[in-house]
Amino acid sequence: MTAPAAPSDGRDLSRLSLNTATTKAWTLREAVDGAVRAGLPAVGVWRDRVQEAGVVEAAKIIADAGLRVSSLCRGGFLTADDDAAATAALDDNRRAIVEAATLGTRELIMVVGGLPAASTPGGPALPGTGGRDLVGARQRVADRIGELAPFAAGHGVRLVLEPLHPIFAADRAVISTLGQALDIAEPYPADVVGVVVDTYHVWWDPDLQRQIARAGATGRIASYQVCDWVLPLAADPLLSRGHVGDGYIDFATITRWVAEAGYTGDVEVEIFHQAVWDAPGDETVSTLADRYVRLVLPHL
Amino acid sequence: MTAPAAPSDGRDLSRLSLNTATTKAWTLREAVDGAVRAGLPAVGVWRDRVQEAGVVEAAKIIADAGLRVSSLCRGGFLTADDDAAATAALDDNRRAIVEAATLGTRELIMVVGGLPAASTPGGPALPGTGGRDLVGARQRVADRIGELAPFAAGHGVRLVLEPLHPIFAADRAVISTLGQALDIAEPYPADVVGVVVDTYHVWWDPDLQRQIARAGATGRIASYQVCDWVLPLAADPLLSRGHVGDGYIDFATITRWVAEAGYTGDVEVEIFHQAVWDAPGDETVSTLADRYVRLVLPHL
Repeated sequence: MTAPAAPSDGRDLSRLSLNTATTKAWTLREAVDGAVRAGLPAVGVWRDRVQEAGVVEAAKIIADAGLRVSSLCRGGFLTADDDAAATAALDDNRRAIVEAATLGTRELIMVVGGLPAASTPGGPALPGTGGRDLVGARQRVADRIGELAPFAAGHGVRLVLEPLHPIFAADRAVISTLGQALDIAEPYPADVVGVVVDTYHVWWDPDLQRQIARAGATGRIASYQVCDWVLPLAADPLLSRGHVGDGYIDFATITRWVAEAGYTGDVEVEIFHQAVWDAPGDETVSTLADRYVRLVLPHL
Repeated sequence: MTAPAAPSDGRDLSRLSLNTATTKAWTLREAVDGAVRAGLPAVGVWRDRVQEAGVVEAAKIIADAGLRVSSLCRGGFLTADDDAAATAALDDNRRAIVEAATLGTRELIMVVGGLPAASTPGGPALPGTGGRDLVGARQRVADRIGELAPFAAGHGVRLVLEPLHPIFAADRAVISTLGQALDIAEPYPADVVGVVVDTYHVWWDPDLQRQIARAGATGRIASYQVCDWVLPLAADPLLSRGHVGDGYIDFATITRWVAEAGYTGDVEVEIFHQAVWDAPGDETVSTLADRYVRLVLPHL
């Protein structure tokens, strides 16, 4: 299959991927159809939407439409400090690796999990002083990536470490910077453990240019995800990911750094925002394509 | 003047300082009296409370009570990209330096300001793509610290750079890590430009232990401020600073790093939290002293 031709208005959308979380109301098939209508050649998919359709059927829906899968979201949650939870997490990650291989993507995004003290994502800390050992939680992530790496390699899938904004360090991901993700990735081949550059999560990092260059030089940039840092923060800060151009991020500069690092892959738009989710899917896709063409593409 | 003796219960509060923002409802005099009642030897003061009393009178209130001033909050806001605003900011910082000298503290905390695109702290980005050059804003901070340093040195005051949590990088402070603050401080003597380690802002940093050690080795730790990272985040995330022990931070580890770095100064408790502010001041001071003795002091 080949990717659909760019639409007749002549804009180059050949690297633009729709992450299915952006059009939350759509099923996988609807998202695939919407991407095709807008002339996008790729989708980034979430496991819940894939499982809803069934993995094999999902792969068929996407392939039949002639789209690429730019990434599968998400594995991870590797910070548990008890054996049963750790074993369950490793099992689930092996399933995710198989799903990625079935879907024909090599990029499995890993959100590595928060502190054991977290009652729930976004929720209060458990009482007492236990479960707050951040250094230990980070070491467990590194160790468990080591356990998963051979299985991933055997399936042709790359474990893509996602540094999350430090706002999520307590409850969602103890990997907080690109440099830290690269340190964890370093012992493994670049096609087995990589990193994602997600503007929302890393835009503030004083060391960002250097770490993007480092990631590029070692061939580890598996995905470039774009969305904006919008204030005021939503009650759930995860939902403050806005359309490119609606917030504070300097996309020209960061995109240039990613391009200079040699990244030539897809640019995935992953937005979590109630107003965006409430809009009709086609309108959302049209807006994100416009923003991409205006604010990202010139710097790629 | 000497600090008041520890209260009769024998707890060692000799390094514990009450930041006046913690007891928001209290005037400066009330905060000073409250600190004395609880056996604390120091206060960290905010400029608004000082100006309310008058700077000279404020200095007298604190000195008459036999308290130290551990720090003055705050100078900064140095990121403006137009000359008039930059000049006004530099003038205000010179006034803050004089106030610090008058109060008898050498530590002036600097919150350096956000991006020019910020409409207001916590507010939406201004339209367009201007004012989002984070690299440029950071350079302006470095340049303006250079302009203020001789004036600060002449008054025996240290400019204390405060890295703020990356959640505030857009709208409040473009210094986001301790390492970045130390890079900006490095060209100046340690008694002219220093840094503050505020647990709320830096606890998530994968490089924290190394940067605390670096700050200690160069004599630049001007203040150790403690409060906890509490979830769910308040609508204004600035107000998610909770009592030590109510959130996710591993105070044993970070306090040990600060102690190992050779810091022997005051430990300032600075909490912004509606429930804390709604509590009677004496109750707040009692709670923070209890938490300090139980969760911080053993590791100092």
